[in-house]
Amino acid sequence: MSETIETDVVIVGAGPVGLFAVFELGLLDVRCHLIDILDKPGGQCAELYPEKPIYDIPGFPIITGQGLTDNLMAQIKPFAPTFHLGEMVAAVGKLDDGRFSVTTDAGKTFHAKVVVIAAGGGSFQPKRPPVPGIEDFEGRSVFYSVRKMEAFRDHDILVVGGGDSALDWTLNLQPLAKSVTLMHRRDAFRAAPDSVNKMRALAEAGQLKLVFGQVTGLEGDDGHMTHAVITDNEDKQHRLPATRMLPFFGLTMKLGPIADWGLNLHENLIKVDTEKFETSEPGIFSIGDINWYPGKLKLILSGFHEAALMAQAASRIVFPEKKILFQYTTSSTSLQKKLGVA
Amino acid sequence: MSETIETDVVIVGAGPVGLFAVFELGLLDVRCHLIDILDKPGGQCAELYPEKPIYDIPGFPIITGQGLTDNLMAQIKPFAPTFHLGEMVAAVGKLDDGRFSVTTDAGKTFHAKVVVIAAGGGSFQPKRPPVPGIEDFEGRSVFYSVRKMEAFRDHDILVVGGGDSALDWTLNLQPLAKSVTLMHRRDAFRAAPDSVNKMRALAEAGQLKLVFGQVTGLEGDDGHMTHAVITDNEDKQHRLPATRMLPFFGLTMKLGPIADWGLNLHENLIKVDTEKFETSEPGIFSIGDINWYPGKLKLILSGFHEAALMAQAASRIVFPEKKILFQYTTSSTSLQKKLGVA
Repeated sequence: MSETIETDVVIVGAGPVGLFAVFELGLLDVRCHLIDILDKPGGQCAELYPEKPIYDIPGFPIITGQGLTDNLMAQIKPFAPTFHLGEMVAAVGKLDDGRFSVTTDAGKTFHAKVVVIAAGGGSFQPKRPPVPGIEDFEGRSVFYSVRKMEAFRDHDILVVGGGDSALDWTLNLQPLAKSVTLMHRRDAFRAAPDSVNKMRALAEAGQLKLVFGQVTGLEGDDGHMTHAVITDNEDKQHRLPATRMLPFFGLTMKLGPIADWGLNLHENLIKVDTEKFETSEPGIFSIGDINWYPGKLKLILSGFHEAALMAQAASRIVFPEKKILFQYTTSSTSLQKKLGVA
Repeated sequence: MSETIETDVVIVGAGPVGLFAVFELGLLDVRCHLIDILDKPGGQCAELYPEKPIYDIPGFPIITGQGLTDNLMAQIKPFAPTFHLGEMVAAVGKLDDGRFSVTTDAGKTFHAKVVVIAAGGGSFQPKRPPVPGIEDFEGRSVFYSVRKMEAFRDHDILVVGGGDSALDWTLNLQPLAKSVTLMHRRDAFRAAPDSVNKMRALAEAGQLKLVFGQVTGLEGDDGHMTHAVITDNEDKQHRLPATRMLPFFGLTMKLGPIADWGLNLHENLIKVDTEKFETSEPGIFSIGDINWYPGKLKLILSGFHEAALMAQAASRIVFPEKKILFQYTTSSTSLQKKLGVA
């Protein structure tokens, strides 16, 4: 069953720039829904460096990605945006009335007058390990995330990687698997020491296998894997029974389906003007790291500026009849009422 | 005696945008001197609304003008900029070697490869009261600020206004004046209650005169004032002996001498491109409220973005031979060393 949501603006991407767009649009009475592939707001900032300090946000000699995200969430609270997290935009189309139809991979449909692409570096996507023919097994035997643990019950599971995801899933799946093998290039893990200790204890007790090397081949038919071919660090090959493989090689960013929306691109970035930050498709705007114009710097502070100018243009599309007065939060009682402070 | 200072960049204006420009230039090893007509950094923000909350600085649900200024001062501290406060740029010229020569009204001369105009709404200038012929007395009998108290000794002084400046100077000059009259439109003052109480006590003791009304004329010859003509709230006129007048009607903003620099203007604002925020004169940049380009919004956050893009272009002028690598403070150890955090 698909659900249709009517809104003024759909923002694709809930990173810092997408969040601040909610603020600038909110000051102009424009309401938004945000869609993000990640399971929480904050984008790259909160996902890749939640605790890592950022030094170049104006007014903050130092702030973490998570701190900035939390502050922005507090700042947009008066405008009560709706978040659709863990979802990816699958398609964007045009309705007869000139509005856009945006569909997500979770089956939701949005009808909106304006679409704002604030998708940062694009969608986070798992890195595919360089194993010949791995594509044939993806979705049947090879998975890059665990949606339902039951799908792994009683399988010979090969987890590949040395970070937290690899360790966590090794430990979580071990009780219900037929067997679990954790494979990493070398005997050094970038995961929580507690998880590493637990994993080593299970390995010593013979309840999981710990091997060092690389997966160099997969065996099986029709997507159903039976064995992984492993090349160890002495360059010897072994065949390991495995019916499920979970490679955790980190995330990479891809433009993803946005590449197919027919927008003018510049080296895989979306070309916009510097007056409204509108794309080649009127009504579709793009702000933040994903856009391009002469002089563009991929700075969060530039995305904030782009959000402010975009909001003026977007509000003229949302309210074509309304005369828009440019006002300051410092002096406008009307804006202060919207913010709940007057 | 004039002093010549050699520097990479002269920034005209030490408001929030001028301050953040120091940060962005500093990351690129460019050193700056800042000139501001006010006696402290922060510009309009710190001067007009130090305690007034601002709600639209990204990442700050609420911050005061003074708070933002303090944060920016902390953020640029690693780059140790030099401030020249209480000074106004009087002239800008070009040297034979292509650099600029910037002279202030305090007699300082700067030689710099780049000039950045971040002068906000322009220079703060005192509002002139609507008294016919007042220009003839300015600088001889009528003053908008007190530079040397001695110049007021043994004079019949008329202070006009109801704010802190009017009250403070009434109290400060009273001991050395022949007589002091404080005039305001009505019996209500926007000044510190303590100052108002002190002034009323002196008035009751007959040590100063408090009158309500407006100055409607000045008498005297050759700039030497003898009397002020006062129209009271019953529309009656009186002649008051006065050889010095100090009107405190607040500040207004004017483009000032920048208007004479020969830059292309758009409705009294400086036209810039949106790639480098450079003016029609190569090497002179303009950022913040004083510039104009299509879509321009007078927002502090836009000035921050403009500062970042300007800095890239300015550093190419300062270091024409150097290859500039765009780096992030989050990941670059070299930038973190400059900030003193690595």
